[in-house]
Amino acid sequence: MRATVIHGGLDVRLEEVPDPVLVEPTDAVVRVLVACICGSDLWPYRRPGPREGGPGRIGHEFVGVVEEVGAEVRAVKPGDVVVAPFVWSDGTCAHCRAGVYTSCLHGGDWGGPGVDAGQGEKVRVPQADGTLVVAPVAPDDARLPALLTLSDVMGTGHHAALAAGVGPGSHVAVVGDGAVGLCAVLAARRLGAERIVLMSRHEQRAALGRAFGATDVVAERGEEAVAAVRELTDGLGVPHVLECVGTQLSWETAVGIARPGGTVGYVGVPVEVTALPHWRMFEHNVAVRGGVAPVRAYLPELMADVLDGRLDPSPVFDLELPLDRVADGYAAMHERRAIKVLLRP
Amino acid sequence: MRATVIHGGLDVRLEEVPDPVLVEPTDAVVRVLVACICGSDLWPYRRPGPREGGPGRIGHEFVGVVEEVGAEVRAVKPGDVVVAPFVWSDGTCAHCRAGVYTSCLHGGDWGGPGVDAGQGEKVRVPQADGTLVVAPVAPDDARLPALLTLSDVMGTGHHAALAAGVGPGSHVAVVGDGAVGLCAVLAARRLGAERIVLMSRHEQRAALGRAFGATDVVAERGEEAVAAVRELTDGLGVPHVLECVGTQLSWETAVGIARPGGTVGYVGVPVEVTALPHWRMFEHNVAVRGGVAPVRAYLPELMADVLDGRLDPSPVFDLELPLDRVADGYAAMHERRAIKVLLRP
Repeated sequence: MRATVIHGGLDVRLEEVPDPVLVEPTDAVVRVLVACICGSDLWPYRRPGPREGGPGRIGHEFVGVVEEVGAEVRAVKPGDVVVAPFVWSDGTCAHCRAGVYTSCLHGGDWGGPGVDAGQGEKVRVPQADGTLVVAPVAPDDARLPALLTLSDVMGTGHHAALAAGVGPGSHVAVVGDGAVGLCAVLAARRLGAERIVLMSRHEQRAALGRAFGATDVVAERGEEAVAAVRELTDGLGVPHVLECVGTQLSWETAVGIARPGGTVGYVGVPVEVTALPHWRMFEHNVAVRGGVAPVRAYLPELMADVLDGRLDPSPVFDLELPLDRVADGYAAMHERRAIKVLLRP
Repeated sequence: MRATVIHGGLDVRLEEVPDPVLVEPTDAVVRVLVACICGSDLWPYRRPGPREGGPGRIGHEFVGVVEEVGAEVRAVKPGDVVVAPFVWSDGTCAHCRAGVYTSCLHGGDWGGPGVDAGQGEKVRVPQADGTLVVAPVAPDDARLPALLTLSDVMGTGHHAALAAGVGPGSHVAVVGDGAVGLCAVLAARRLGAERIVLMSRHEQRAALGRAFGATDVVAERGEEAVAAVRELTDGLGVPHVLECVGTQLSWETAVGIARPGGTVGYVGVPVEVTALPHWRMFEHNVAVRGGVAPVRAYLPELMADVLDGRLDPSPVFDLELPLDRVADGYAAMHERRAIKVLLRP
């Protein structure tokens, strides 16, 4: 079969790799229907030079059809359309039972040693019962892109909103206008937020943010962004801030616009963070809550809304390509020509 | 009158200063009955060289008797015994109404420009109605030391416990065996914690911690402390961690022993923190909540328990000195010969 392999900086290729086969009795083999490229895939893509440890598989978001299951798999069967969360997990360990599937004692990452990744034609899924969630739809259902967002970005935006304590009537600010930030807007609106300030200086993204529920857009950055948001909030700041970027600047902004006693719900991979602004956090009791999103926990609830037509995050996909053009997809996201790229094998 | 003035590193002196007088109609003048030295007073005391900006007043914890009140003061009257929180606040601004008294829009610090501090014979109290809490006791009541802990350390330990989400049946770890850490143990027990692990390698402090409710004491530090606490918790970590120190090492320990999805409630002034361990926080969804404690919010509730005899944090005072020996008190705490020093003018 063919799958995406990252060789190093700006170098991803669709290559011939071995077909997956069942290894453990808890495995399933899934044929991918739709996959996509994540903003976090750009971190290794942008790292100059050859990839440390040699070429490796990449991609952690996919919806597919089960082709084969191991002897111990009970929750999915061949023919099922399934959504895969961006981390696989057993669903039964102490951390999974507590809802923190991303810290599963027997789980792991797609593309890890001996494990397939999502941007390919097929995937061996470890811990299939704990990992996969069946979507009661046909393999050609028009809602596959919306379901695919539940693999990561929509569940991640939802995690940011939950972590920040967003609820009915909340006043919210979202730092980040990538796919996760835009999904965070949608999640905040879904949870009943009354006012949602989106930090964005990108016209198309801001427009999508407004369509998703943003009531205000602030184009300033850094100190000016902090001043602008303070002005919007009588100088008090915002009780619920959703940090969806993961840079030092985004963190300074997020904590800077937070109201004393407020909470920053964060999901941005902190690759470019030197130090959280702990002095302001301390002086004004700004809490920080979040991390890598246990989207498996949210899949059933969010899927129900997608299937009912109440939730449609699919507009975050503004470019669709066949899998063999995956390299073009990476380039488009890298150059900010696309928010998020959907791939069809 | 006489009050404590800090001149620089290891140099505090009791000096003659002007008697306080009412300046604003919202002021009160309070005669100090008991005051004390805080672990955080040691930060400027340990900073080498002359104090930046010249000598200044110090001390932010006191219980006293109201001598005089301004024309607009309604909540206290001459003769009342009052407890002062370690930050003064108006009690009416948006942040105070939200319970974050330490971010009061019209408040400030004791010893700030033109403001008296606590380690003296008298104090002009700005925003007296918002700041002071009347204790229905006589000026010679034996519970004054217990009430004095509500100025800071007991309320601060309580804040750490609340921020970490401690409740009935909780499993808790406390990093820090100073007065605040010990009060955090007491606060956790008061909130119903079932298991309380105290990190301490100081025999006397550990003994007091056990008397306050600690069920386990871990003497290791750093990586070894993390391993020891993990071993105590089936490798899973502790859901509620109370950080009561404020150094890089204490933070690495606190986040390291936290269970995935758990919370670090923190109150240690982060003077020696370089960077919060944001990678582990992110990877395991460890939340961080707390900051400078709005003890004013907790004073009525904790005072009721002290007056009922259900709460007695006064054993944290293991050395009592007359005010004119304040310099000896600082030295004793600096050299860790005393946990906390009570001063009587």
